[in-house]
Amino acid sequence: MANHRTLATQYANEHRSESRAALEQFIRIPSVSADPAHQQDVLSAAEWLVGALEDAGVPRTRIVATSGHPLVWGEIPAGENSGTTPVLLIYGHYDVQPPDPLELWESDPFAPTERGGRLYGRGASDMKAQVMATVCALQAVTATGELPVTVRFLLEGEEEIGSPSLAAALSANAELFAADVCLNLDSGMHAPDTPTITYGLRGLGYFQINLRGPGRDLHSGAFGGAVANPAQILAELVAGMHDADGRVTLPGFYDRVWEISAEERDRLARLPLTEERILRLSGAPAVWGDSRFSVAERIAARPTLEINGIWGGYTGPGAKTVIPAEAHAKISCRLVPDQRPEEVSEQLHAYMDSCALKTVTWEIQEMAGGAPYYSSPETPAHQAFSRALQAVWGRNPLLSRHGGSVPVTSHLEQILQVPSILSGFALPEDQIHSPNESQDIENWYRGISTVTHFLFELAATG
Amino acid sequence: MANHRTLATQYANEHRSESRAALEQFIRIPSVSADPAHQQDVLSAAEWLVGALEDAGVPRTRIVATSGHPLVWGEIPAGENSGTTPVLLIYGHYDVQPPDPLELWESDPFAPTERGGRLYGRGASDMKAQVMATVCALQAVTATGELPVTVRFLLEGEEEIGSPSLAAALSANAELFAADVCLNLDSGMHAPDTPTITYGLRGLGYFQINLRGPGRDLHSGAFGGAVANPAQILAELVAGMHDADGRVTLPGFYDRVWEISAEERDRLARLPLTEERILRLSGAPAVWGDSRFSVAERIAARPTLEINGIWGGYTGPGAKTVIPAEAHAKISCRLVPDQRPEEVSEQLHAYMDSCALKTVTWEIQEMAGGAPYYSSPETPAHQAFSRALQAVWGRNPLLSRHGGSVPVTSHLEQILQVPSILSGFALPEDQIHSPNESQDIENWYRGISTVTHFLFELAATG
Repeated sequence: MANHRTLATQYANEHRSESRAALEQFIRIPSVSADPAHQQDVLSAAEWLVGALEDAGVPRTRIVATSGHPLVWGEIPAGENSGTTPVLLIYGHYDVQPPDPLELWESDPFAPTERGGRLYGRGASDMKAQVMATVCALQAVTATGELPVTVRFLLEGEEEIGSPSLAAALSANAELFAADVCLNLDSGMHAPDTPTITYGLRGLGYFQINLRGPGRDLHSGAFGGAVANPAQILAELVAGMHDADGRVTLPGFYDRVWEISAEERDRLARLPLTEERILRLSGAPAVWGDSRFSVAERIAARPTLEINGIWGGYTGPGAKTVIPAEAHAKISCRLVPDQRPEEVSEQLHAYMDSCALKTVTWEIQEMAGGAPYYSSPETPAHQAFSRALQAVWGRNPLLSRHGGSVPVTSHLEQILQVPSILSGFALPEDQIHSPNESQDIENWYRGISTVTHFLFELAATG
Repeated sequence: MANHRTLATQYANEHRSESRAALEQFIRIPSVSADPAHQQDVLSAAEWLVGALEDAGVPRTRIVATSGHPLVWGEIPAGENSGTTPVLLIYGHYDVQPPDPLELWESDPFAPTERGGRLYGRGASDMKAQVMATVCALQAVTATGELPVTVRFLLEGEEEIGSPSLAAALSANAELFAADVCLNLDSGMHAPDTPTITYGLRGLGYFQINLRGPGRDLHSGAFGGAVANPAQILAELVAGMHDADGRVTLPGFYDRVWEISAEERDRLARLPLTEERILRLSGAPAVWGDSRFSVAERIAARPTLEINGIWGGYTGPGAKTVIPAEAHAKISCRLVPDQRPEEVSEQLHAYMDSCALKTVTWEIQEMAGGAPYYSSPETPAHQAFSRALQAVWGRNPLLSRHGGSVPVTSHLEQILQVPSILSGFALPEDQIHSPNESQDIENWYRGISTVTHFLFELAATG
C-alpha cells in the first residue's frame, strides 16, 4: 500500500500537463446554470464529465435526470484485496456563476488564460479545479494499482442556483449515493500556507420580491403626488429589513440562532478574518455590521440578509420621467444553526404582511434554500483528510467555519445520513462569483496530491 | 379676412388624408433623444421637419446647432396687408420617449397603426401630432391666402431629456426666436369635450445617485455581515426621502412652496382630477399622497420626489448570491412656484451629506432641470386662443394647472420675455411615456382647425 501511494503521487506529478489540459477543457464549457440560454452548455459539461470519469478508470457512470440540470454519477469499487474499507462519496458541482459584468473581465471568462501562476476563467476556482483535483487523483491511483476504497461520485449542475432539484434527486436515488463519508472540496482554504478543514457552513434562503402598482409605467408629471411609486415602496420595505445597528428585523429571525460559546469565540479568533484583511479582499471603504461581534464571527456564525439585486423603472442612459409599474428585489439570507430556510420564508411573509401594503400588490418567489451545517472535525475520516493535508503542506489544517452555503452538505446529512469533509484548494483571492475569477495553479497541483494521499489514509481507517 | 379664414378651415378639412400621411411619416422616425443609439434618428426627424415646414410654405428655415440635439427654426412673415400684428412663436419638440418596455406594445411603436379611432405610436400624442397640427394649419392658411401674423418656429429635440441645451441656445439665438407670444401645444386637454388652457406647470429637477462600495461584486457568503451592501444603503437613502405621511424630507424642500389660496382651491376643484379618475387612468390599486390636499391639488400645485429608476446587483433570471459593488437611482422632483431646480439640487446634496455615509462613496449627477411656470390666462393672446377653441368645440376652455414640466416655458419667459399659451389636443388616455401611446385622430383634426382659427384670432388682437 505504501508503495502504491508513492507510485500514485509520482504519477500525478508526472501528468500535470495532461491534468491541466483537461481542466482547461472543462472551463471552456460555459455551464451557467442560472441562465436558460446556457441550458445546453450545462448538459455538455455533464457529458464531458462522464468522459473524464471514464478516462480516469471509473467503470460505471450515469447521467441522472432531475427536475432541473442532471446529476453525474460514477462508481469504482475498491480492489479485491482492500478488505473492509469505507465507501467515499466525492461531491462536486459542474455549473458556474453567470460571468457578468463581462466588461470587467481582463480575458474571456470561458477561455482559460494563465497569468502570474493563476488560471483565469469563470468556474476555474468555483469549482471546476476542485472537481478535477479528485478526478486526476483517482486517475493517478487507478493507473498505478487497485483502488483502496470504493469511490462514488455525485456531481451536480445546480449548485450556483441553490441546488433546487438535489434533495428530491438524492431521495429518489438513495442507493446510488450511499456512502460512509462525503468529500466536498467546495469550501476552500484560508491562505496558501493554511490548509483548511471547514466544520461549519451558513445556510441560505433566497427570495424574490415582486411589487406591482399602476397598470403601466406612468408619466410622473401627470400622476406624481397622487399614485404610489413601487420603487419607493420597495426601497422602504428593504430599508425596514435592518435596524440602525445592522440587525435583521424579520420577526423571530434570531430566535433560533446559537449563542457563540467562549470556546467557539476562541476558535473563530484564530481565523485569518481580520478587519484589515476583509478591507483588502473586498475593496470596500469600511467594514460594516453588528459591532457586538468580530468580523470573523459575523461571517462565520451570524446570519445576514442581503439585497443581491434590485430593479425597477428606467435604468438606461439619460432621464426618463416615469413612475414605474413594477419594482423587484432579489434578497437572500445566510443562516446559522438552528435557523431553517422555510422558517425564514415565513418570517419574510410575516414582515410583508405587517407592512399592510395597500398601494401595491406583492408576491414572494422562493428561489433556493439550504439549512446551515455544523459537524465535529474529530471523526476518523476528518482525521484521515487532516493527515493527507499534513503530508502535502507539512502542517496541520486550520479548523474553520465558513460564511458560504453548501446546500448539499445538509441534504446529505438529512437524507442519506452521510457526513461531509469540507475542504478545498480555492483561496480567498480567487474572486469567485466576481469578474476575473482564477485558480492558483500550484495550489491545485497540491490539491491533486492531497486527494491522492487521502484515498490511502481513508482506507487505513477501515 | 373672414373669407380667408373660411377658405383655410375648408382647406384643412379637405386635406385630412395628406395631413394624416405626413404625421405617420413623422412618427416612423424613432427620434429617441435619451438613447445615444438613436442620435442619427433624432437628426433625421429635424431634417424631416425642415422639409415639412417648406412644404407648408415657410420660406426661411434653419437647423440650429446646440451642444446636444439641434433646434429647427423657421420664419414666415405676415402678408403685406396685415398691418401691425403680433409675432407668434410656435414651440414644439420632435424627440420622443424611449419605447421600452417593448414587449408591452400591441403594435410596433414606430409603425403608426390605427385602432378604434386612435393612431398608435411612440410620440404620436407627445407631441408629433401637436407639432403637425400647427404645420398643417399653417399650410391651410398659406395655401388660401396671405398669413395674417408673422410666425416663427422653435422645434427642439431634447424635451424628453429635460431640454439640457435649450437655455444656452435661446440665449445665443435670441433674435431668431423673438416674439410676442408663444403657442405651446405640449400640455393637452382634460377630456375630449373639454378644451383646456393650462396656466401653470410644475418644474423639474432630475438627478442620478451613484453609490459605490466594494471594489467588485462580492460573494455574499464570504463577505456578508462584514461589508455594507450598496443596494441596501441606497434603499435606506431612498426610503429616508419621504416621511410616513408621504412628505419629502429634503431639508428646506417646502420652504418656497406657495400656499394654495382659497380662489386657487376653487379653480383646482373644477379640474376633472378626481380620485376615481386617477385610479381608472393609472390602474393603481389605491391613490396615495399627502392627505391634507386633494389629488388635483397634489398633482397641480404640490411638489413631488419620485424614483424613476433603481438598479443594482444581479437582475437576471434565477439566484445569484452577490453583494453588489454599485447601486444607482434616477430621482426627479416635480416643482411648484417658487421652487428652483438648483435649490433642490443643493437640498439633495445636503440630505446626502447629512447621512454621513462611510461604507460607500456617492455622487449625484444632475440630468435635467426647469423652473415651474405660472401665468395669468387673461392676456389678449390667451383670449384669442380661447376663442379659437370655442369656435371648434362650441364651449369655453377649462383653465387648468398641469403636473407635468415644460422647461421651455420658463426658459422663454426668463430669457426672451415671451409668455406662453399652453394647450394641446392630447388626452389623459393617450398613455404618453408608456407602452401603446396613441393620439385620438378626430381630436387631432379639431386641433388643426383650432390652430387655423387662432392665427386669425391672434391677428385680430393686433
